[in-house]
Order: sequence, then C-alpha cells, then structure tokens
Amino acid sequence: MVSTQSLAALFDPGSVAVVGASATPGKIGNIIVSNLLEAGYTGKIYPVNPDAEEILGLPVVPHTTELPEGLDLAVIAIPPAAVLEALENLAERRIRAVIIITAGFKEVGREGYYLEQEITRIAQENGIALLGPNCLGLISTGSNLNATFAAGYPESGHIAFFSQSGALCVSILDWALGNNIGFSRFISLGNKAVLNEAHMLEYLADDDQTNVILGYIEGVSDGKHFMESARAMTMKKPVVLIKSGTTASGAKAASSHTGAIAGSDQAYDAAFRQTGIIRVHDVASLFNLATCFSTQPLPEGPNLAIVTNSGGPGILAADATEKSGLNLASMTSESLNELGRILPPYASLYNPIDIIGDATAERYAKALEVVVRDEMVHSVLVMLAPTASVQVDETARAIIDVSKKTDKPVFACFMGDMVVGSGKRLLQDASIPVYSFPEPAIAGIEAMYEYTERRKRPAPAEICIRRDIDAARQVIADARKRGATEIVEFQAQGLLKAYGLPVPSTELARTSQQAVEAAERIGYPVVLKIASPQISHKSDVKGVRVNLEDSSEVVAAFMDITSRAQRLRKDAFISGCLVQSMAPSGSREVIVGFKRDPQFGPLIIFGLGGVYVEVLKDIATRLAPLSLDDARQMIREIKSFPVLRGVRGEQPVDFEALQEIILIMAQLALDFPEIDEAEFNPVLVNPDGAVVADVRVILAPPEGAPDTEDV
Amino acid sequence: MVSTQSLAALFDPGSVAVVGASATPGKIGNIIVSNLLEAGYTGKIYPVNPDAEEILGLPVVPHTTELPEGLDLAVIAIPPAAVLEALENLAERRIRAVIIITAGFKEVGREGYYLEQEITRIAQENGIALLGPNCLGLISTGSNLNATFAAGYPESGHIAFFSQSGALCVSILDWALGNNIGFSRFISLGNKAVLNEAHMLEYLADDDQTNVILGYIEGVSDGKHFMESARAMTMKKPVVLIKSGTTASGAKAASSHTGAIAGSDQAYDAAFRQTGIIRVHDVASLFNLATCFSTQPLPEGPNLAIVTNSGGPGILAADATEKSGLNLASMTSESLNELGRILPPYASLYNPIDIIGDATAERYAKALEVVVRDEMVHSVLVMLAPTASVQVDETARAIIDVSKKTDKPVFACFMGDMVVGSGKRLLQDASIPVYSFPEPAIAGIEAMYEYTERRKRPAPAEICIRRDIDAARQVIADARKRGATEIVEFQAQGLLKAYGLPVPSTELARTSQQAVEAAERIGYPVVLKIASPQISHKSDVKGVRVNLEDSSEVVAAFMDITSRAQRLRKDAFISGCLVQSMAPSGSREVIVGFKRDPQFGPLIIFGLGGVYVEVLKDIATRLAPLSLDDARQMIREIKSFPVLRGVRGEQPVDFEALQEIILIMAQLALDFPEIDEAEFNPVLVNPDGAVVADVRVILAPPEGAPDTEDV
Repeated sequence: MVSTQSLAALFDPGSVAVVGASATPGKIGNIIVSNLLEAGYTGKIYPVNPDAEEILGLPVVPHTTELPEGLDLAVIAIPPAAVLEALENLAERRIRAVIIITAGFKEVGREGYYLEQEITRIAQENGIALLGPNCLGLISTGSNLNATFAAGYPESGHIAFFSQSGALCVSILDWALGNNIGFSRFISLGNKAVLNEAHMLEYLADDDQTNVILGYIEGVSDGKHFMESARAMTMKKPVVLIKSGTTASGAKAASSHTGAIAGSDQAYDAAFRQTGIIRVHDVASLFNLATCFSTQPLPEGPNLAIVTNSGGPGILAADATEKSGLNLASMTSESLNELGRILPPYASLYNPIDIIGDATAERYAKALEVVVRDEMVHSVLVMLAPTASVQVDETARAIIDVSKKTDKPVFACFMGDMVVGSGKRLLQDASIPVYSFPEPAIAGIEAMYEYTERRKRPAPAEICIRRDIDAARQVIADARKRGATEIVEFQAQGLLKAYGLPVPSTELARTSQQAVEAAERIGYPVVLKIASPQISHKSDVKGVRVNLEDSSEVVAAFMDITSRAQRLRKDAFISGCLVQSMAPSGSREVIVGFKRDPQFGPLIIFGLGGVYVEVLKDIATRLAPLSLDDARQMIREIKSFPVLRGVRGEQPVDFEALQEIILIMAQLALDFPEIDEAEFNPVLVNPDGAVVADVRVILAPPEGAPDTEDV
Repeated sequence: MVSTQSLAALFDPGSVAVVGASATPGKIGNIIVSNLLEAGYTGKIYPVNPDAEEILGLPVVPHTTELPEGLDLAVIAIPPAAVLEALENLAERRIRAVIIITAGFKEVGREGYYLEQEITRIAQENGIALLGPNCLGLISTGSNLNATFAAGYPESGHIAFFSQSGALCVSILDWALGNNIGFSRFISLGNKAVLNEAHMLEYLADDDQTNVILGYIEGVSDGKHFMESARAMTMKKPVVLIKSGTTASGAKAASSHTGAIAGSDQAYDAAFRQTGIIRVHDVASLFNLATCFSTQPLPEGPNLAIVTNSGGPGILAADATEKSGLNLASMTSESLNELGRILPPYASLYNPIDIIGDATAERYAKALEVVVRDEMVHSVLVMLAPTASVQVDETARAIIDVSKKTDKPVFACFMGDMVVGSGKRLLQDASIPVYSFPEPAIAGIEAMYEYTERRKRPAPAEICIRRDIDAARQVIADARKRGATEIVEFQAQGLLKAYGLPVPSTELARTSQQAVEAAERIGYPVVLKIASPQISHKSDVKGVRVNLEDSSEVVAAFMDITSRAQRLRKDAFISGCLVQSMAPSGSREVIVGFKRDPQFGPLIIFGLGGVYVEVLKDIATRLAPLSLDDARQMIREIKSFPVLRGVRGEQPVDFEALQEIILIMAQLALDFPEIDEAEFNPVLVNPDGAVVADVRVILAPPEGAPDTEDV
C-alpha cells in the first residue's frame, strides 16, 4: 500500500533531491534542475553529484548518503546499474517519494526485469511512493513543480493527465502549449513498478486542484485494484481514458462462442462501463471532453437548444444532435410566444432557433435569455456564422453574460477563424467551450449528459444467489476424476440443479426404445439430441430433431441421429440421445456465458442465439460481480433486444427469469475459479419463464498439469 | 441546357457589370466593386447606377440598357422587384452569365416563388448561366475574380467548393483564411434557379485549375441529372460532399417494410455510392480529404507502413489502421534484413516500425528509403514525437526528400504543436499532409484508397431482363379495374410469371377439400397460408402453417387458419387458403423490395427476412437501374451476409438466382411508374435456387384520383 502522505510528498513536495544532477547543459540531469528552477519551485533543491560543487547556482550534495533525513522527493537520473544502491540509500534517509527517470529496466529484458523487481521491493518495504522507472517525470503546476526533463511547462489549470507512454506525454505537453490547455498535474507513469493508474485515480479524485482526470493507458497493472478505485472515483470526478492496443492479435484460440467473441478489449469496455469511466479513441476527443467538463456545469438532461444566425450551420448542428443521444429541446409555448415577440418575422422559433443573418448581439442576448430560462432546455449551443452584419465580439460578450446568469451549460460554435477569431478568444478566456464546427460541441455535450445520468444511478446492489455449492463442487470433482476437461450435457445437469437453474425435463436414452419410454414420461412433443462427449456442436452433425409428436417419429429420429453421427464422427463415442420436453411456442433462444479475462476476471456475455451472436456479434458484456441493474442493462443493450420485447404483437419474454440466469452465471464464475469458460446455450426464454436447454463448462487444466501450449 | 461557353463566361469572365453598384462604403453594391478591384481583376468592370458618376475610381453606366453588347458577366445586387427588368435588359444586351446576389425570392413565399420562376424562364430562353438568386457570389482565384460581398479573399489552390448555404460559404472562407487552405473556385449556389450542383460537377470536372471538388448540399435539384453528371465526374476527380438534413422527419407513413425502412437519406447514400461520390458528415473531414487528395498521389493498395520514433503513438496509429479498411503492411524479408542492418538493436522492424526515441533525421531517412521501396507498401505514415533528441526540421526535410523520390503517398504526424511547429510548416509547404494526432491521417489515406478501388471497377454493364411486359400490364390493369390499390398473393402471380420469377407451386383452395386436392397435386409436405386481400401481414393472425405432411393435417390447418382469421379480422374477406410446396431444407428467407424516392426514383432494398430487416435494419440499398455488380454487392454488403454464405458447414445459397431476382425487381420498378412500392417477401433461397414465396405490389393512386392525404 502506498500511503496518502507519500503521494502528497510526490505531488507537492517541500523538498526535492536530484540524484544525477549535472552541470553540463543539455544533459538530462541538468535539464531537470533547470526545469525545477524555471518553473519557480520554491522548496529546497538538493542536486546530488560526486564531482560538481555547484549546479545552476545551487550547492551540490556529493552523495545520497549525505542528504538530510526525511526529504519529500528524489528524482533519479543515473545509469540503471547505480539505481538500486541510490534507492537503498534514499530509503535509509527515509525519503517519502521517488521518481526514477532512468530507462533500462523491464522494457529491455530479463536482467532489467529482475532489477525492477528489486526496486519495487525496496519501495514497498519502505513505503516509498515510486513513479517510473523509464518515465518523463511529473509536473504539478500548483506547486510550481516541473520534475521532468521535458521541453516546456504548461499553464496551470484543472485538468490532470497521466500516461503510460512518455512519448505521448511530451507530444501532448507540446500540443497543449500551443493550444492554451492548462494542467493541474501531468504524470508520466513509465514502467509502473509501484505506482499505476489506479493510484493516480485514487489520489486525483480527492485532489482539490483537479476537476477532470485524463489518461492514456495500454493496459492496467491490477484489474481488481483498478475496478475498486475507478468506481468510487468516477462518482467524484469525470475520468476520460484512451486505452490503446484495442486490436489484440494472437488471442488464445477459444473453445466456446463466448470465448471466440469476447476479447480483452471487450473486458476493458466492460470495466470502463461498469466503473463509469468515459472511453475515447483519440487524443482530440480526450481534450475536447476535458475542456467541456472543466469549464461548464453538467446538463440536467438531454434537451439541447441551438440558437443560430444561419440555416445551413443550424442544420449541421441539428443533424449531429439527432445522431447523438441528445434531443433537440421542444420549448414551452411561453418561450415560443416570447421569441415570437422578440424576433423578426422570418426567424424560425423552433429549435434550431434561427434568428437570421442580420442578427445583432442584442438579438442574440434577448433570444438566449428566453432559451436558457426555459425549463425544457438543459443545455445551449450558440452558433454564429460571419455574415455581413455580424457583431463578433459583442455577441461573444452577450453569450458570456447569459452564461454567467444561468447554471445550465453553454457552448459556442463560431464558424470560421479570421473574422470570428477575436470572439473565440473572448469566449475561451471566459471558460466557454468554443468550436469552429458543431460536431465536436455536440460530442462534448453528449458525454457530459451521459456522465450526469451515470452519476444519478443508484450504487449497485449486492446480489446473493442461493445455491448448493457442495453439490456443484462434487460435479466438478467427478469430472476431474474422469479426466474430463469439459462438462457437457447430462453430466452438467447436476451443476444446473445445484444453482437452481430451470431445465427442461431431460432423460438420456441409450436405445430407441428407451427414447420412446422417456418421451412418454415427459409428454409429447419432444426434442431428441445426440449425446456424445466428443460432439460439442450438435448441429454440425444434424444432431437435433424438434417437435417429435409420437413414438414412430421418436424411433425414426433416434436412428437417424445416431447413425449419422457415427458416420460423420468416427472418433466420437455416442452415448445415445437426450430426450427433452419441447419449449413452449413463442420461445426465443439466447446465450449466456462467461470467459475468464486474465486481467479482470470473469467477463459475462449475453446475446441472442444463433447468428445474432456468431455472425452479427450482437452481445452485451459485463465483468462479475454483477448488480441486478447490470443484468437488466445487458438484456436491453443488445441491438436485437426488440426480438425479446416481441415484434408484431408477440408477448415480451420473461425478463426477470433471464436476469436471474445471467446473475447465476456470474455467481458460478466467481464460485469456481477452476472453470475457464461456461456457456448456457441455448437458454429458451418465453413469456412465462426460461429454461437452460444446454450447457458447456470448460475446466482449467488441473494444477501441475502441463500447459497445453507447451505440449 | 446551359452551354459550356456561358459557364466559362461565369467562371472566367473577360468583363463584369455590377448592377446596383454603389459609391457608399459598406453597401453590398460597393463591397462587390471593391472586392473585384482588390482581388486584382484585370478585365473591364462596369458599375451600373443611375445616380453616381464614378464608383471607386471607375466610370459608371447609368442603366443596364446602356451596357455594351456581349458582356460576359453581370452581378445583380438591387431590390428583388427590380431584378426581373434588369435581367430582361441584360438578356437583350446578350449577356452570357449572371449572378443574382439579391434575396427575397422563393425562400420568402409564394410571390417570390413566381418571381423566381420568371427569372429561370428568361435565363433559360436566353442561354444565360445564372447563379443564385439569394447567394454570396463566386470566386475564381485563377482569374483574380472576387464577385462576392464576402470579407476576405482566399489563397489560390486546387480545391473547388460549392455550397447551398451562403452562411457556410462565409464561415468556410473565414476558416480557410486562418488555415492556409487555397481554392480554385468558390461558389455560393443560393436558390439554384438555374445552375445547381450537377452543373458545378460537370464544369469543375473538366476545369484545369481544380483537382478536387467539395460541396455542401441540403438536397439536389434534379436527381436524374445529378446521377448522370456525378458518375462520369467522379472518374475524373474526387468529389467529396456533405449532405445535411440526414434525419428527415415526417416521412410519409409507409405500408411495406421497404417503405418503412428506406428513407430519403438512404436514397442519397445509394446515389453517392453508385456515382462514386465520397460522403462525409462534418466540415473538418471535408477539408481533411481535400488536402489529402489535392496534395498526394493515390495509393495503389491498402497496405500502410507506419514509421515512428515512439511506441505509444505507434500503437495509436496501428489501432486506427486496424479499425479502418487499410492493412498494416507486411514487408518483404529483404526490407526487414535491410532495416535490421540500419536500425539499433531495440528498434522494432515490424510495422509499426519503431526506430526509437533517439532517432535522428538521418535514421528516419534511411528507414523511410527502405520502406517506400518495398513493393508490399502502398502508403506511408511518418510519426514523430518530440523526444529529447528529436531533430524536427531535419526530419521534416528528410520526409520531403523521400516523398519527392517516390510515387507513393506520404503522410506525416508530428505529435505536438510548439516544438514540432516549424517542421509541420515545412511539410505543409511541401504539400505533405501533416497532423497532430494519427486518426485523421488514417481517415484520409483510407478515403484515398477507397476512391482508387472505386475507379478501378469496370463501368456498370447494361442489364436486360427478358419479360412479357404486356402480360404484366394486364395484371395491373385488372387490379385497377377492381379498384384495388394493392396486388397481393394470388393476383400477383401473373406479374411474377410475366417477369419469369421462380415461384413455388401454389394453388388457391376455397375449401379444406380443395386444399387437400391441391396438396396432393403439389406433393407433400405443403404450406398453407391465409388468402385475404385485407390481410397483409399473415403472421399477425397466425395465418401460416408449414410442413403439413398429410391430408388430415391439411384439413385441420385450413379450418384453424380460416376460423382464426375470421375471428380476429371481422373486416376481412377470406378467400380461403393458398396451398404451396415446402421450400427445401437449408432455405433462408430474404426480402427484395423497392420504394420510389421522390428525387431519385426507385430505391431497391435487399436484406435477410424477419428481424434482420425489421429490428436490425440490416439492409443494402441501390437506385435503379442496377448493374450486375450492384446486385452482387448488395448481397455481400449486409452484415448478415455470412448467413447466406452458410455458417457451420451449411452450403452457400444460390447467389446467381438471388442477383437475378434483385435485378428483376429493379426492372419492374422502371417498367411501371404506377407502382409505388413492391416487395418480394419472403424470397426463399437455397443452395440450388430461389423462389419468390410471397409478393405485395402497392399501386399509386390512379391519375385524377384525389390524393389520399387530401381526403
């Protein structure tokens, strides 16, 4: 555990030692000292160097052992081989925080990997907040701290940014300098030997100087820690992340649909969704959202009003709105009457409100006052095209005035650059997000609205599934004893029963005569399915017959199924056929499954059966544990949800029953880490209930067994 | 028809009259003259004004009747009431082209509408190329012509832009001035009384000064003319358009699936796709593509090589590439060996090629030379992050050098702004598109690749469908005689036969006894379907029974179907049941239909039956006439195509048979303008053929009949 005190010493140190400080201009150890001085750091700086007496006017300490006790922060920029000893000395001097700039650790191979492990151990044993190694350093504008070797120091602001890529750090710093983006904290994570993205979220969520948290990650160090931090943090502040490497190739060949469809990127998507993190896919969007969140209040709802002095740009904004999750606000009749009085005859009172090309700043002001007052309006976008009679600066000031008087978010789109440039700068200085074209404005408002909705949702409730865990354990133990790696069909029935899952009446028939007897016990019509541990995909061998209505049909089907299977799959042992009751008419097939993500644990999937999942990849995913709300959302967010709700007068299926099956799958995944993947496929759901008609459970190789990849 | 000579007089006039020229600064008639002079127009300028003697140093002509004969262009900026007479006078003086700046025509109501019609008539009778009214005017940088009242004059360049929105014109002009975008032609179309987007495409496609055409349209004036121009024009030059108003509300309630799903925006999408126009949805993308197309050669294939000095940015670029239609190029082993020799040990030779953080300009140059030479590489993106040892300007020059020596397109992404700014400017000046972040670069390269592919495709072949058009006409005439507005089921069989469409054996049975007789003629198993002109959606009344295997099943099904229909639909006349042969197993259901778009004519749709079309809106659309390639593509571009190709070892369906049915639908739509909508639903397609199992044809109201909306 890293203590809050150590983190405070890292972010706002009262003193900084620079281990490897140099008197030679251009050397990293020189740039760091010079950056500290230039940013106006007021704490004490201790350059450490055995050979120099003075560096940039500061007295030099010859060795880490001679540093005063209890310093806050040391920045290390010496060759990798010397880092370990320096860190040990610093630990002895009871340093609180360390940044290791030096590269040459786990990123360069085996030796560096072990060296980094040592560093981690020392830091953890001594409660040191350690950033890096292999990083650019850290900037805290509030403390005038530039503990990096980067060129350039950003303006102060309320955006915190952390990044796993040092190159992206320098790029974004350089870009921010040219685009007047200010930061509270700017952190290069490097190899994350100790401090990782989860620590950043925890610290920054309570940081007074930060009101929006941005980050670039290529992966998380600890999925469980990350999930725990992120969920609470996003309730405090918006967190916007880029997760790169979305197209992970070389994923392990999977043996179920669930495994084949849900990759590690889906696990990240689920983790972000469940913790309320906003995921974006490019740097421009990252900073667009940062600007929106850090300058404007959150919208209370989805209704956007657009005020424009021209038709074409208004249509572009309306198009973007309709494609988003926002609505074009319908205003009250009082507002419409009021606008009718204020505006000239050709103006359009309906949203987008077109106050036409000769609109003065005064007309903008009057119209905006009516619009922001309207209770049906939750946010406002003001569009301005540089028409002949436009009053750019005056209109900007009018927007600023209106914005000051309302607690609704206000955005501006001044279309153009030269003529409208001075107005844009006025708006920027007054913290009103301003754009050249409407689309990114709409994207920003939409993200803010979604964040608002997310925060309103109640905290996820704990779900307890009643189950006979000993019985379930026995089923798995039996399978292990048989040397099985999969539990399917009849053998899995015990597992289903242990979890109280509804199943269709099923009997195994080894002969056609047994099949007829079973059918008569179950009641016609019945379904016959091939039963063979080697045949997973029954339809591949046409191993399923439905709607068998009498004994002669059952006999014929039994013969046909078993003989075909024997012919097509000579390797397979055919146990016979399963005889099952028919699902009621109006049933729909769904799949519920999970696979175990190496980082985040069980990833639960839900989708409609057959081609919906296989061809259209129309699935919903969540990480276990699930809340009731997660299960509810999963059912509703697939594209083919209308099929479950019922098309053409069909009855909706039993959503409660379906939710429960999803929750049970999550419980099963959490109960048995030795299950790698599991799938209920199909689950037959109808208006009055749901049954699990088939199941596959894939076990992890027993401990001590050789990994299949090594064989 | 507008002649090329008239258009040439509009775009590059030897003389310009300004009707409504004014000596008062700030008036539109003064700004226009001043803009002409300031842009350095060298032809003769004739200000027309009854009261002034001299305007901005030019001698004034008192009246349009006193202008010399045969002038090239007149710009009219006088009140709307005076425009008609001025235009008549100009026509008499045999003017070639006219721009009407004046507003107050069809955009303000009925009177303006008729005035505009008069203007159109006069222009057309006299062969005048007329731009406007209600427009900003026209800029031709090649002729130093600024015939607008806009503030600011753009740099010259090779991009032509036309827009239906004047406000967007001024906005983009203002934005272009601040972003160094040059134009060849800049055209405000206004109300399009004569000249419209199709004329622009025709003229600009042959314009030497233009190499890429951009436009903003809210709709086209003449769908047929537009389709004809655009198809040929996009083979000459890339055309990139924004079509706004994508979410047309208030579409007429439609009576078929086709009608409900395919809106006017789909028709535009189809029109753009079939003519090779590139559609974008925001102004930033419009100019990004313009820059790419106007500066770089087209890539010969999809393989992109990324050269970077840092990992994180390289991953971002690779992510964007994998999400696009491009591939990360796999280089030849010779290149890999060569790179291995040139690059330091920690470099990554595989795409993205990471030449690591200490890369000098020389290392960039050497690596790039190997990469562009590789025959597996079709385009190159060079990424640079401002690392400590970066050589910004030298690297920019190295990229420029390599780019000069290759005919492959080269793009740059210099991540940042301040440190990398000078390098960006060097690249821009050398016509290499350069970005701050990789995503828009990838979007640009992808669009260029798609355009290249499109141009390679052979011209669409004419398709002739053999049919008995007289027989078909008779079926429609019979329906008309009965007063029917729909032709369904049995009555439509004649139509299907006339077009040689394969149908399942079908007989109408009025009694259960007739049904059994029919089933025995057709052969078991059979399908029974309710037959009633009032019941379109048979499944709503459970009016279909499949797989009936003997006479008792047929009798029971007949009774059940007809009695249920009578109970549920008391308004319906029940003719009996249709008896049909069963589709072979392995059949899949698809829908083929058309609806008539008011602008573009018949819009053909294709999709998988049932929820695929209804819930998932998974359809392909094209405008008739169709080429064989169109039909082929339609089948392949739906998301659920794998269902047709066969999943899990299923045989693929008979694509040829399906193509033919789609082509026949297009032919039917073209043959009978009196058909509003038609739908083959379902078409049962199996590996050995396809049959049209059901059909609905909706007739337009007979001429002279009151419009149903007026009733």
